[in-house]
Amino acid sequence: MTARPANTHQARLLRLLRDGGPNSRAQLGDQVDLSRSKLAVEVDRLLETGLVVADGLAASRGGRRSHNIRLAPGLRFLGVDIGATSIDVAVTNAELEILGHITHPMDVREGPVAVFEQVLAMAAKLRASGFADGFDGAGIGVPGPVRFPEGVPVAPPIMPGWDGYPVREVLSQELGCPVMVDNDVNLMALGEQHAGVARSAGDFLCVKIGTGIGCGIVVGGEVYRGTTGSAGDIGHIQVEPEGRSCACGNRGCLEAHFSGAALARDAEDAAREGRSPVLAERLGAQGTLNAADVAAAAAAGDPAALDLIRSGGNRTGQVIASLVSFFNPGLVVIGGGVTGLGHTLLAAIRTQVYRQSLPLATGNLPIVLGELGPASGVIGGARLISDHLFSPA
Amino acid sequence: MTARPANTHQARLLRLLRDGGPNSRAQLGDQVDLSRSKLAVEVDRLLETGLVVADGLAASRGGRRSHNIRLAPGLRFLGVDIGATSIDVAVTNAELEILGHITHPMDVREGPVAVFEQVLAMAAKLRASGFADGFDGAGIGVPGPVRFPEGVPVAPPIMPGWDGYPVREVLSQELGCPVMVDNDVNLMALGEQHAGVARSAGDFLCVKIGTGIGCGIVVGGEVYRGTTGSAGDIGHIQVEPEGRSCACGNRGCLEAHFSGAALARDAEDAAREGRSPVLAERLGAQGTLNAADVAAAAAAGDPAALDLIRSGGNRTGQVIASLVSFFNPGLVVIGGGVTGLGHTLLAAIRTQVYRQSLPLATGNLPIVLGELGPASGVIGGARLISDHLFSPA
Repeated sequence: MTARPANTHQARLLRLLRDGGPNSRAQLGDQVDLSRSKLAVEVDRLLETGLVVADGLAASRGGRRSHNIRLAPGLRFLGVDIGATSIDVAVTNAELEILGHITHPMDVREGPVAVFEQVLAMAAKLRASGFADGFDGAGIGVPGPVRFPEGVPVAPPIMPGWDGYPVREVLSQELGCPVMVDNDVNLMALGEQHAGVARSAGDFLCVKIGTGIGCGIVVGGEVYRGTTGSAGDIGHIQVEPEGRSCACGNRGCLEAHFSGAALARDAEDAAREGRSPVLAERLGAQGTLNAADVAAAAAAGDPAALDLIRSGGNRTGQVIASLVSFFNPGLVVIGGGVTGLGHTLLAAIRTQVYRQSLPLATGNLPIVLGELGPASGVIGGARLISDHLFSPA
Repeated sequence: MTARPANTHQARLLRLLRDGGPNSRAQLGDQVDLSRSKLAVEVDRLLETGLVVADGLAASRGGRRSHNIRLAPGLRFLGVDIGATSIDVAVTNAELEILGHITHPMDVREGPVAVFEQVLAMAAKLRASGFADGFDGAGIGVPGPVRFPEGVPVAPPIMPGWDGYPVREVLSQELGCPVMVDNDVNLMALGEQHAGVARSAGDFLCVKIGTGIGCGIVVGGEVYRGTTGSAGDIGHIQVEPEGRSCACGNRGCLEAHFSGAALARDAEDAAREGRSPVLAERLGAQGTLNAADVAAAAAAGDPAALDLIRSGGNRTGQVIASLVSFFNPGLVVIGGGVTGLGHTLLAAIRTQVYRQSLPLATGNLPIVLGELGPASGVIGGARLISDHLFSPA
């Protein structure tokens, strides 16, 4: 696909078809502020580009029956979510429905060359499975700050070897299609906004607690990235003046006290120090522990595991309480690998926020878990590139 | 004035004339994306409304000389900044230049009826001094959260008696012109953006440290007010888990530890406990102390006063550091009455932010004092109402 909409009306029509599926000309006309004749002109031009195709007759609304149109059924987007310890790759159709989705464990510290070799192999596998002949665009998320216009990671603390790597340029060449790159947390926010729990939210926060902690910020329906692309980098907010050392060089950062990595460390400590027979047994069997082990131990009623989750939730809730006072969002979404800890975590976060933030900011504020799990990042990636392609060139 | 621009082109032209002053049709044409003939149509319509007037011939650019136009010289905006302990009222021309400015001490806790009686007396005085025959619009700031579309204060902690008072409606009736109401901190941000230190900033924070502490948030050049109008309410972010009691009912809020009110309390304590001869002398002479006394004592080298400023700056800096990590602004402006504490305060804030926030967020981040002092709020008020009036109806 090389065609792009020629103007904002065409872009609006493409996004309506993406978000609402096939529709009649008459109903599209109700949604855009265009006269019947102007609408016909723009739809005809879109049909000429091949981005949109006719799709039979619509149900009658009385009078002449209107023609249905839809996005080209052959359009394929690639969503790639590179996490600290795994890669998700999915292919979607033009309506951003997932047709195929693969996950592969991989340490992001192996560097961009090894990681993208893996990504390309996964994309090839999806093609070989018949989900796509080729890709019309790809949206990539990486677990660190990104200089967004250029699609280049900048000084990412947990991604040695990635600083300045031209992700957008390299992948665009390899895949032979347009590529957009963003922070993984922003992709999660876009995914939950498109198909998850944040569908009707204008201003919201999406807190991702995985190996690290980050926050996607959406203002008026658009991701806010900040002046240098590091907005939402809440993992290094100080929660304990003389707290634990953090990889960033400071002490007492949120991420050093609670995150997937911190939780694994604290769970192993609890196991070794005899505070948790359940965790000790798992450590003995597996050699290491992770957030899923803590979740399982908590589900079995292990007090030490429950304590770890509660105290982590309290700290995270303290930070979110500050952000709620500052940003006054309409919704807070909690996502990421640690959400396997479920409602114990959520309850601790809610308690802090509802206690510490002003009533005016929390009165109608839902704090909820994300709905999409690992699909949020790849749907977010598809959404990111489709937003780009469905904009005037 | 009842006329409003009929479309976005006219609104754009009015704002260009407001922000850039009188200009030639030719130069305006360079700045808006309109053909010469369409520009002529829109300018002619604006001339018909009386919002814009001809202003002689422009300097030659070769070829036929272009006509200058400007905003009607008789347009008058009223800017009103209601603080916790004082009222500022100013009248501006259409370019938002202050023609007359009066300040009057007044406790906001006297309630809306008494406060607005005073505001109307001050406006009448400005009229009587010949600065205005009447007002074409007024922008009002109050020291608490505002439900912005309706112009009504909501649950303002330091403004008993104001909750739900229809400020916009009442003042609009009394003044006989359109009125917009906002939080005082947002007006300060608008003022510094229009005529102060934030002129070229797109995404910035404006932290006002007065009787309380609040933060104006500007995203892409627009004030961000949050879902219920309480965005920027950072005075009640917890800085000390078991800290001082706050008027909001919680403990350890920033405002309970540092603000104009907290500083006065701590200065009086220092004076009474014999920790500061300078403050003790002032307290003896005046019966009370305020931020200006602390500033004077610090300027005289008083160690206790310097300590108060530094420790308050440290706490404020901690909170700002978190907000910088979260929001990644391009500029942080510090304003409000306490800025009389000057560079000792600024140095303490900067130290915390540059130490605690990630280098990517602070690399090119200026943290500066506001430029406009008490004029920022009234200019912000004039800007607020002019933004409203210079929008399509």
